[in-house]
Amino acid sequence: MSFSTNMRFKFPILAIVLQIVIIILFGVFVKYDTHDHSGPHNSTHEDNTFLNLYPLFQDVHVMIFVGFGFLMTFLKRYGFSSVGINLLIAAFGLQWGILMQGLWHLHGGKIEIGILKMINADFSTATVLISFGAVLGKTSPVQMLLMAIIEITIFACNEHLAGYLGASDTGASMTIHAFGAYFGLAAAAVLYRPGLKNGHENEGSVYHSDLFAMIGTLFLWMFWPSFNSAIADPGLNQEMAIVNTYFSLAACVLTAFAISSLVEHKGKLDMVHIQNATLAGGVAVGTCADMNIGPFGAMIIGFIAGIISTLGFKFLTPILASRLRIQDTCGVHNLHGLPGILGGIAGIVAAALGAKEGCSPTMQGAALAATLGISVVGGALTGLFLKLPIWGQPPDQNCYDDSIYWEVPLEEAEHENHYQDEHGKMKVDA
Amino acid sequence: MSFSTNMRFKFPILAIVLQIVIIILFGVFVKYDTHDHSGPHNSTHEDNTFLNLYPLFQDVHVMIFVGFGFLMTFLKRYGFSSVGINLLIAAFGLQWGILMQGLWHLHGGKIEIGILKMINADFSTATVLISFGAVLGKTSPVQMLLMAIIEITIFACNEHLAGYLGASDTGASMTIHAFGAYFGLAAAAVLYRPGLKNGHENEGSVYHSDLFAMIGTLFLWMFWPSFNSAIADPGLNQEMAIVNTYFSLAACVLTAFAISSLVEHKGKLDMVHIQNATLAGGVAVGTCADMNIGPFGAMIIGFIAGIISTLGFKFLTPILASRLRIQDTCGVHNLHGLPGILGGIAGIVAAALGAKEGCSPTMQGAALAATLGISVVGGALTGLFLKLPIWGQPPDQNCYDDSIYWEVPLEEAEHENHYQDEHGKMKVDA
Amino acid sequence: MSFSTNMRFKFPILAIVLQIVIIILFGVFVKYDTHDHSGPHNSTHEDNTFLNLYPLFQDVHVMIFVGFGFLMTFLKRYGFSSVGINLLIAAFGLQWGILMQGLWHLHGGKIEIGILKMINADFSTATVLISFGAVLGKTSPVQMLLMAIIEITIFACNEHLAGYLGASDTGASMTIHAFGAYFGLAAAAVLYRPGLKNGHENEGSVYHSDLFAMIGTLFLWMFWPSFNSAIADPGLNQEMAIVNTYFSLAACVLTAFAISSLVEHKGKLDMVHIQNATLAGGVAVGTCADMNIGPFGAMIIGFIAGIISTLGFKFLTPILASRLRIQDTCGVHNLHGLPGILGGIAGIVAAALGAKEGCSPTMQGAALAATLGISVVGGALTGLFLKLPIWGQPPDQNCYDDSIYWEVPLEEAEHENHYQDEHGKMKVDA
Repeated sequence: MSFSTNMRFKFPILAIVLQIVIIILFGVFVKYDTHDHSGPHNSTHEDNTFLNLYPLFQDVHVMIFVGFGFLMTFLKRYGFSSVGINLLIAAFGLQWGILMQGLWHLHGGKIEIGILKMINADFSTATVLISFGAVLGKTSPVQMLLMAIIEITIFACNEHLAGYLGASDTGASMTIHAFGAYFGLAAAAVLYRPGLKNGHENEGSVYHSDLFAMIGTLFLWMFWPSFNSAIADPGLNQEMAIVNTYFSLAACVLTAFAISSLVEHKGKLDMVHIQNATLAGGVAVGTCADMNIGPFGAMIIGFIAGIISTLGFKFLTPILASRLRIQDTCGVHNLHGLPGILGGIAGIVAAALGAKEGCSPTMQGAALAATLGISVVGGALTGLFLKLPIWGQPPDQNCYDDSIYWEVPLEEAEHENHYQDEHGKMKVDA
Repeated sequence: MSFSTNMRFKFPILAIVLQIVIIILFGVFVKYDTHDHSGPHNSTHEDNTFLNLYPLFQDVHVMIFVGFGFLMTFLKRYGFSSVGINLLIAAFGLQWGILMQGLWHLHGGKIEIGILKMINADFSTATVLISFGAVLGKTSPVQMLLMAIIEITIFACNEHLAGYLGASDTGASMTIHAFGAYFGLAAAAVLYRPGLKNGHENEGSVYHSDLFAMIGTLFLWMFWPSFNSAIADPGLNQEMAIVNTYFSLAACVLTAFAISSLVEHKGKLDMVHIQNATLAGGVAVGTCADMNIGPFGAMIIGFIAGIISTLGFKFLTPILASRLRIQDTCGVHNLHGLPGILGGIAGIVAAALGAKEGCSPTMQGAALAATLGISVVGGALTGLFLKLPIWGQPPDQNCYDDSIYWEVPLEEAEHENHYQDEHGKMKVDA
Repeated sequence: MSFSTNMRFKFPILAIVLQIVIIILFGVFVKYDTHDHSGPHNSTHEDNTFLNLYPLFQDVHVMIFVGFGFLMTFLKRYGFSSVGINLLIAAFGLQWGILMQGLWHLHGGKIEIGILKMINADFSTATVLISFGAVLGKTSPVQMLLMAIIEITIFACNEHLAGYLGASDTGASMTIHAFGAYFGLAAAAVLYRPGLKNGHENEGSVYHSDLFAMIGTLFLWMFWPSFNSAIADPGLNQEMAIVNTYFSLAACVLTAFAISSLVEHKGKLDMVHIQNATLAGGVAVGTCADMNIGPFGAMIIGFIAGIISTLGFKFLTPILASRLRIQDTCGVHNLHGLPGILGGIAGIVAAALGAKEGCSPTMQGAALAATLGISVVGGALTGLFLKLPIWGQPPDQNCYDDSIYWEVPLEEAEHENHYQDEHGKMKVDA
């Protein structure tokens, strides 16, 4: 078993080959976006655009790397992987996303990099990070790199299709959140581990790991208005996207706290709900973030999202695991899946109410259906590919444990297997 | 006793009813600010205003949610409440603040939401979060929601009064910091618990909880220039507010470190001082942040603030507890109270020296006096209301302990009371 | 021994005297930059400049205070010092940096503070924080303040010299990273402690301290594009600096992960590499960040940087310690030294290829050589000065231990020396 999980050659070779291929493709296809600087009149305006959107890009950047990374550190012995492999996937994914999204929009055979391309590249990594949450603790770094290649490729196609259909999805409830969630859940279903059906001793939090996770929660929560508005049309649409997301999230906090207390032992609050369900309002308001739904309309969406997300964690996750054999480590179905579908439906309703010019409820519905279908099929096929026993996946007993892929400092006498490294430090052996 | 602290119905019902009331009020009163977009000339300019101020708004947002939230995680067993209830209060408070502040500035019977309204809404929550620090560990979530309703209402009135008097308080040393501190201290005095006069075993930090608190400290420290400048007049006043706050905070760090070492055992530094007193320079320079006091003037304010804040923690807090029977958990008197008054006085002096056109020292003094009076009376009355034995406040022995309101993972054998939840995980019972 | 490390008088007196001297110098030399506001035409433009660059300044600010501060919290018992003394040095250093850099650019005998001056002041502190990493755990707060005074003074001279030579170093691979690293390493060589040559029980991480360090890593990684572009020429150069740094860092992550797995036991990843070597791409692309090297050129630089940095940690650090008697606590040679030189060389090559108008490879080389020479000599002399046995440096057995300079809460029964403070709390005694 130690042979199959040893990453020594397969992981470094894969990572370096991928990076070399990307550098070659960038050499051939990618250049700076200098168009608006060559013209004498537009230069100032374009300057403003890059630097005006740069703070929103950085907010999204923080969500991807700190937000997603730390949100998953809630597991007691899996923080290195959560935050480390998150960094690896996202750093690879943003490069791959530039290529996959850019190939649909070539200018003279070239992909021209500006701030919008960078924001979209970060967005494309979010799908994989969401799917990562579904299979967290049960996959190897090699598997995650492979998933990133496949998922971002399919994502870019699906996103292009949604645009082709004329659907509006500025905050990407459908094309990122629902897509990433159902892709990951389908993969998790294929990768089902019967040996974990009664849980695992490491599949839980400790006091401080729950606080680390709150770092992720809060940066996601605060910067979600930037996520939902970064690629909106400048002006009032962009401002409405910010305002709507701000209020949807605020309303969602109240209902997530309320329902958590309502369903838990003695009316107590559950950290899992607070870490996740408070964010559902950001997911659910995404599709119609830039539409004229009114602040109170945004609040209603957040209100409902907080309720269904919390109820999902409490009642649906156990059913998914036992009946559908889907082990959803982070509960992405409750944070991204259900609220993503709610967002898609809200977009259909808003389009029917005329909240955004040129949006058709039919096309919104078509984009939602296409997203769900493509993500489930894509995720299932990816799961089959990842199931090949050559990618170094961990055995059941080493799931949710950093020490199988990481050098872990020896903390206490709790671990029986340990060794002394060449610097004389005690390390945990898997 | 377990009955009275059970939040199962009173908390969810309160939270959901409040959110529904807010949604209805938003439906009636709140709309997007679209004025400047309708005019053909101003649209570009207004675009700039929203997106130009958006980064400052996000800095303030981080201060409210990460800054205040993590600053209070220093307590060894109260991190969930600190960062969680902070999120709850702020998410509710910003919605309530939009309404309470907006009612004073209706346009055609409507509150029009733009970036300045969002910044001010975040500001209004800061008062409650400061007061929360005074009563931290001794109140229930229900009590905190009730305090938020009352305090933000009174804050909006007091802020309107200060504006009516013509007082300048751009960084809100008086109207936010002094107000929040004395409101909270008055409430704490009324809620005095004799049973805690000899301390409590959980009223202290552990090594890692002090590091979590430093996350809060640093984000507050770094983004304070945004807090003090976000609503300043554009141009030189706003830039002076940034520059002055930057230097005041820097000077304050040096004196806070110096005095901490001077008064502690063997010249050692105390984390409580470093976490809090290094921020006093941001509080104290608030009122005159946008005035022409010169960088060295700002430094003098920060220099003094670091000294009085550290001395306050060392010598005044014990006296407050023993003589005045005010148990100030986070020492908000030293971080927000004293430096807030110092800021008010600095504003009087600066106005007398003509540092800002149209500012009268008399009116500055009147605003300070009004703020102190209103906050103490308001806080005392709120304390009386919160003392009603129906809000689920914790018994003395369960103070400073998350497990009374939260599902807490069982970490070690340290807790005698625990149970197994429906997922088979071990939890701490209060 | 307890006498010499007692900071009670020497530290407070030094800190307060320094702050008073700075306030006086600011009173004499420093004023707001109001030039562009006096003219009727430029006022709007200058407004934009200040607020346009303010988000980039805040990103740099976060890198300095959270990034550097938390990156060093990886040590198990030295987190208070890492994040606390980092704050102290930076808060002092930015004030001193304003003066030292400003004296080279007086206008009418005055230093005029605008946003670029604030960014450069933050930059100047980075050199000391890098050097701090080399001597971390083996110096007193007094020594670090003294090092800050000397190093920032020499840095400002060297930076002025590089500008005088006409060298381009927008992201400061040479003048900040290589300078700070070799200054610190030279000081560490002079301060060599034979008693630590076999390591120290506290010179290592625990599980949660490695996660705290990742907070630092991620904020450095995300905001590095702001660091490398903040003082670039507006327009295309600034945008290229952002884009190049974004891609260099992404490529660097892949190779850092790959090489870490390649060289470690059983192909596992090492947190030290992930925390540090993933950042080398930001350092190495600094000098030519704003040059027309193409996104793939930036990736090649990041690719190489990730490899040499990880190999440096694995193979060079042990050699430095045993052969050259340089104990480099944080491995700054691998994160800032080698990648800084790589950045300088990349700048020479890029200049030779004509990637930036007016850049001469000869002058780039001269600036690199001057930087290395001045930093080594300056660091060695500073080390000699700091070696005087009057600055309260810790004895060998108390190295890497917060409790010698900090009040540390007693956590477990692990410490034999403890006492009860005046509030009845248990503290660790050094």
